Amino acid sequence: MASLPNGHTAKKLDIVVVGGGLVGSLEALYLAKRGHRVRLYEYREDIRETPQARGRSINLALSIRGRRALKDVGLEQHMIENHGIPMVGRMIHKLDGTTYAIPYDARTNQCIYSVGRNYLNGMLLKESENYENVERYFNHKLIEANLKKGSLTFTKTDTKEEVKVNADLVIGADGAFSAVRKAMMKQPLFDYSQKYIEHGYLELCIPSNANGGFQMPANYLHIWPRGTFMMIALPNQDCSWTVTLFMPFTNFKKLDSKEKLLQFFEKYFPDSIPLIGKKKLIEDFFSGSPSPLVSVKCRPYNVDDKALIIGDAAHAVVPFYGQGMNAGFEDCTLLDQLMQKYKDDLPRVLEEFSDTRWKDTYAISDLAMYNYVEMRDLVTRPSYRIRKAFDDLIFWAFPNFWVPLYNSVTFTTMPYSKCVENRRWQNKVLFSVIVAFMIFTMFGLFYVRN
Amino acid sequence: MASLPNGHTAKKLDIVVVGGGLVGSLEALYLAKRGHRVRLYEYREDIRETPQARGRSINLALSIRGRRALKDVGLEQHMIENHGIPMVGRMIHKLDGTTYAIPYDARTNQCIYSVGRNYLNGMLLKESENYENVERYFNHKLIEANLKKGSLTFTKTDTKEEVKVNADLVIGADGAFSAVRKAMMKQPLFDYSQKYIEHGYLELCIPSNANGGFQMPANYLHIWPRGTFMMIALPNQDCSWTVTLFMPFTNFKKLDSKEKLLQFFEKYFPDSIPLIGKKKLIEDFFSGSPSPLVSVKCRPYNVDDKALIIGDAAHAVVPFYGQGMNAGFEDCTLLDQLMQKYKDDLPRVLEEFSDTRWKDTYAISDLAMYNYVEMRDLVTRPSYRIRKAFDDLIFWAFPNFWVPLYNSVTFTTMPYSKCVENRRWQNKVLFSVIVAFMIFTMFGLFYVRN
Repeated sequence: MASLPNGHTAKKLDIVVVGGGLVGSLEALYLAKRGHRVRLYEYREDIRETPQARGRSINLALSIRGRRALKDVGLEQHMIENHGIPMVGRMIHKLDGTTYAIPYDARTNQCIYSVGRNYLNGMLLKESENYENVERYFNHKLIEANLKKGSLTFTKTDTKEEVKVNADLVIGADGAFSAVRKAMMKQPLFDYSQKYIEHGYLELCIPSNANGGFQMPANYLHIWPRGTFMMIALPNQDCSWTVTLFMPFTNFKKLDSKEKLLQFFEKYFPDSIPLIGKKKLIEDFFSGSPSPLVSVKCRPYNVDDKALIIGDAAHAVVPFYGQGMNAGFEDCTLLDQLMQKYKDDLPRVLEEFSDTRWKDTYAISDLAMYNYVEMRDLVTRPSYRIRKAFDDLIFWAFPNFWVPLYNSVTFTTMPYSKCVENRRWQNKVLFSVIVAFMIFTMFGLFYVRN
Repeated sequence: MASLPNGHTAKKLDIVVVGGGLVGSLEALYLAKRGHRVRLYEYREDIRETPQARGRSINLALSIRGRRALKDVGLEQHMIENHGIPMVGRMIHKLDGTTYAIPYDARTNQCIYSVGRNYLNGMLLKESENYENVERYFNHKLIEANLKKGSLTFTKTDTKEEVKVNADLVIGADGAFSAVRKAMMKQPLFDYSQKYIEHGYLELCIPSNANGGFQMPANYLHIWPRGTFMMIALPNQDCSWTVTLFMPFTNFKKLDSKEKLLQFFEKYFPDSIPLIGKKKLIEDFFSGSPSPLVSVKCRPYNVDDKALIIGDAAHAVVPFYGQGMNAGFEDCTLLDQLMQKYKDDLPRVLEEFSDTRWKDTYAISDLAMYNYVEMRDLVTRPSYRIRKAFDDLIFWAFPNFWVPLYNSVTFTTMPYSKCVENRRWQNKVLFSVIVAFMIFTMFGLFYVRN
């Protein structure tokens, strides 16, 4: 899978990436390919040597923006062919246990892929070992940062030893609770917002069946939409399903006994009980507690030409558009394109990234917030299905002229803010057509009467 | 001015107030009146012993919410009679130097008062000396806080000595960049946003005239609205004016020479040049640099029954509604009312304050943001003046039924969120009336034609 550094840069930079998660380890590959020296510092142990930690999603939906990034570093084909499970649409579970499918793209059968966080992260880290110019340091916790100077202090979580590091550029890819961003907040004129939604999530599991196969149709994202709450399930490589229950914290609190839990599931998710298994449902539900969901927006993303934040550190979003990882991966792609454009001239690269990227991350953040309502509620309404059918029809007839919102976000690399603008334009067109139709009908009636 | 603690509380609480500014020192008085032990810690020196610091507004507009609070602690009358300068409306300065007045309340001549920050703060601190149960500590910087335990660590800024303090309740009234709030941000599920507007402000001064009198009509808030920027002036007790120029930072940057500055003032504020004086204009403009304006929203305001933030620490707003101090003072009033209602039972007091107050502070924050556009731009437009005339007319005829937005915010204690709702309702009524009128006219025309 490896490819040697192509060394097309004017000057070899010394870059520190904080955070060895999905975005950090991908960014290390992009930078390594450009020939820079990369040191990757991660707070946790090497993910390849640890079991899956609870409290972070187990699997994720990979779509075109993420795929493009993996392609750039030579890993897309491997991922799609060997690991990802294609999902061609949503499968809705009704209260009575019956289901129906809503394809994402009936026209060309485009799909998203369910991928394991640990597998993907491990693959990216492993690939970085093929580059001599990448060094990996695990168990390093960032405790102090002078971003204007590019100097960082870590403590080793095992030995408590202090480590001081200097770099030409610090890239913070250390997630929603980023320590690099915390240091950035001290800068004047830094806009920042963090918002917790009133819903938490809790993960459950549907195991594989007796023959080691899937218990539900594998190639769908399964949804149990219940208005103010919902459950979803994404397939895993081992034919199990990771099931996630999203619900207001206040509702979680009410389910404080086995009886109440089972009653609740029998009322709202009856078909899921035999799939999960009563015993396992009770065990998994009460062994964890619901995790919060935070949405973070901020800007600018850089401190001069010395520091930059990307991924969740720059724009944590709620998970309902399946775009968190994809947006983070797209950051890496766009940063690479700017480095190419400006020949690694950091002042220009960082300024342009910061000035342009926020519009799109703010847009996907708002879309993700909106999509929760769509997934848990609107999706079951006739108005939604009529609009979706209508969108699909025009899309089918004029694929270049009318791309529905979900499709533009998931299956194109159109900037997120353009996707939103595009949708607004479609709404206007639709509104005009309806008004024109009504006027036409009225005149028609008038004509007929006279 | 003093009144003795009336000791009507069940249990004497040990309360630490962090921040001895306007809100902190007022809160100390409210708590002292309830008989609690109050320790007031302030980062700066005693304001009564220091000259006015640059970078904080010199004077402020006191309106009904602030007055009510001062009345509660027995200081309103003194303030209004001895210090505040009434402002009965806006005086608009046109480009050609001519002016016209827009009264705030033509019906009953209600006014707001221009008051000096230092005078007011000094008065509140002095008043606190009349209470034996209040201790004041200046030059104490908060460096660590365990809010769940109510324990704080300060360092003395002069001797660098460390001081550890424990309290039943910690009240953070330490301003827009609050250290108590910073500690609060570590709590899970804390919503937070800080937003800097693209405009900065710079203070200038119009001195008194040769006879020691005002150079402009004293009882107005003077505005030079110029669309994308503006200048305002508030009167001081010594017959000078504090002039504030609000403008995008990018515009400030362009004024990098005396010539450009004078050219700019000659073009946009020609009548102000002889008032300020050319020499003083140049001196004052180039001796400072424009300060940023930040808007902070967050919630919840409490940590259990141990800590609470109020004033700018909880809700810094941009200054364009003149409600920053008034909203902070209203926090103190509402907190006192809850303490009365629940007999100082902190869990209930803090929870209800936090659960209810944010709606109103979010509302005034949005209003303040909006009012900048009104002050610098809309105020000069015919549409604004027509609406204002219309509002004033109905208000005059039905004073209880139709209170215009500005008046409800400034001259009533209606919760801010209700003021906004009220305005929305008025907009709906107006819209309906206009539509009804149009339909009526159309039918009229139709009838006449036939």
